Amino acid sequence: MTILAVDCMGGDHGPRVTLPACRRFLDAHPDARLLLVGQPEALASFSHPRAKVVPATEVVTMDDSVETAMRRKKDSSMRVAIRQVKDGEAQAAVSAGNTGALMALARYVLKTVDGIDRPAIASPLPNAKGKATTVLDLGANVDCTEQHLLQFAVMGSALVAAMTSEEQPTVGLLNIGEEIIKGNEVIKRAGELLRSAAAAGDLNFHGNVEGNDIFKGTTDIVVCDGFVGNVALKTSEGLASMIGGFLREEFSRNPLTKIAALAVYPVLASFKTRVDYRRYNGAALLGLRGLVFKSHGSADEFAFGQALGRAYDAARNNLLDRVQARIAHARPLLVGSAGDAQLEAITPE
Amino acid sequence: MTILAVDCMGGDHGPRVTLPACRRFLDAHPDARLLLVGQPEALASFSHPRAKVVPATEVVTMDDSVETAMRRKKDSSMRVAIRQVKDGEAQAAVSAGNTGALMALARYVLKTVDGIDRPAIASPLPNAKGKATTVLDLGANVDCTEQHLLQFAVMGSALVAAMTSEEQPTVGLLNIGEEIIKGNEVIKRAGELLRSAAAAGDLNFHGNVEGNDIFKGTTDIVVCDGFVGNVALKTSEGLASMIGGFLREEFSRNPLTKIAALAVYPVLASFKTRVDYRRYNGAALLGLRGLVFKSHGSADEFAFGQALGRAYDAARNNLLDRVQARIAHARPLLVGSAGDAQLEAITPE
Repeated sequence: MTILAVDCMGGDHGPRVTLPACRRFLDAHPDARLLLVGQPEALASFSHPRAKVVPATEVVTMDDSVETAMRRKKDSSMRVAIRQVKDGEAQAAVSAGNTGALMALARYVLKTVDGIDRPAIASPLPNAKGKATTVLDLGANVDCTEQHLLQFAVMGSALVAAMTSEEQPTVGLLNIGEEIIKGNEVIKRAGELLRSAAAAGDLNFHGNVEGNDIFKGTTDIVVCDGFVGNVALKTSEGLASMIGGFLREEFSRNPLTKIAALAVYPVLASFKTRVDYRRYNGAALLGLRGLVFKSHGSADEFAFGQALGRAYDAARNNLLDRVQARIAHARPLLVGSAGDAQLEAITPE
Repeated sequence: MTILAVDCMGGDHGPRVTLPACRRFLDAHPDARLLLVGQPEALASFSHPRAKVVPATEVVTMDDSVETAMRRKKDSSMRVAIRQVKDGEAQAAVSAGNTGALMALARYVLKTVDGIDRPAIASPLPNAKGKATTVLDLGANVDCTEQHLLQFAVMGSALVAAMTSEEQPTVGLLNIGEEIIKGNEVIKRAGELLRSAAAAGDLNFHGNVEGNDIFKGTTDIVVCDGFVGNVALKTSEGLASMIGGFLREEFSRNPLTKIAALAVYPVLASFKTRVDYRRYNGAALLGLRGLVFKSHGSADEFAFGQALGRAYDAARNNLLDRVQARIAHARPLLVGSAGDAQLEAITPE
């Protein structure tokens, strides 16, 4: 029995998308239960023998500041969903709500694992090998030290080991060249630390990788600071959207090209499936004493279902224990810095 | 009469690609002259009334360190080409050689413009509006202060104004959110400086932009540090290559899909032209007392020709004077930092 707590109010669409996704998820996973968190009147239409409504009176909107989410909306669906994990009522929480608020609440309610200064956001991206490259951090931490990058590498390895059959996934350090001497000082020191961790058996470190290696699939995991990761992710989304738009435009240019599009419909459909970002929805918030998954805010029913599926897989494959075991093993290298002033500043209540 | 100095030995392919590109360029530009720089025996096959060989005995390889390029190969084709600009023999130099060496040599030979601490690499990328977004820095500077980002914004504005009809191009500051409070400390201070520059009439500052805005074409120019810019560029190259590969695979899956590909050939060809990265080849090295353009190392004849074309346009449109005039105008905001230890370290000879 795997139990997930779902923030049904979060995201751009709220219950209109989350509820149908929950129903489909329950139908596909006979051993799963869901705690549907939100305003009871908004969830009243839903009924399923393996689902239970957990009431929450407030909703964190996509525009709410972290401060509002933390201090003014203490009974938000997002917070109550995370609380279910803290209280042992659920093994993982899933939300499509605003990332900053989710990270801050998760960190405040669940706390970080010993040895981890900062939680990170990790998500798989499709690669040319037909597999996925897991990239972290994707935006939780704008300034990182080499210690943080090492922590990301250890946590990312635990994530990929839990979600795939790859017990020793390869780790690449995102840089602007493959040579050891490339990059800024933090990156160079991170390279040294990652090599030490590899020597100690904590990691399968490949070395430096460049931006193009993410989609090439050179390594299973790519580690970077949250600023760089966020820019890389969003730049990719922008490019994919532009290319998709160009392809649509070319095929709808005139009646002849429209007929051509019909003729090649199966080919285009198959292509579209392969590059469909929605399949990869569901980012893990790693480094917390509980599992939290973040869906894209604009997720549709299919995409939100993918995020539920990822949370379910993580819970069943003991991601939490794996992260903690790997962190414990790497402990001699994790010198635990003095904490994170930027995130700390938002946590006191 | 516009004269370009071409490093004919640089890049992955050397004269095999550069010479045919030069011939085509000369045929298309009746008022242009070229100085073909390289080993005379490698260039002996070429003859054209508006081309002249300038001998250089050495070649900087793609793997040569900056130090080797600077100190051991003093008669390299790359250096001699830049020297032609310094000596007033040519208005711009073009090379497909290794970026680090080209930047270091250009900086050493030409020196930076007053008010500029660090030269930057700027290149146009296609956007969904059917125009181009100019991004800088793309990798010359791994650590940047807010002053550097301001300098990039001013130089990028001069570049776009020189190359397009847009006299007041819009500038976006690459960040992980649109709100002013987003980003790290350098980015926040850079935002303040850019707003001051806009108030003083030095810039048309749009505000923060995110990764997806590059390909959306939200602004004409996107400013970022060289680490982030390089990762964004290479991530895009990797994604474009993956998507192209998937499309090819789908259309060559079986005899039926191959026939389908033939049927839609004109549509696919038109699509391919629109996303063809080669059209955008030719990055400007900005902030030097002379014009230098960098071609992609793997450029083919068409792509190298595009880089020649960009250098030619820049020279004809007085890019150098425009950069200097804009820098002079923005001078009160450019407080000139103490110089760049990292680049300085490689320049003494």
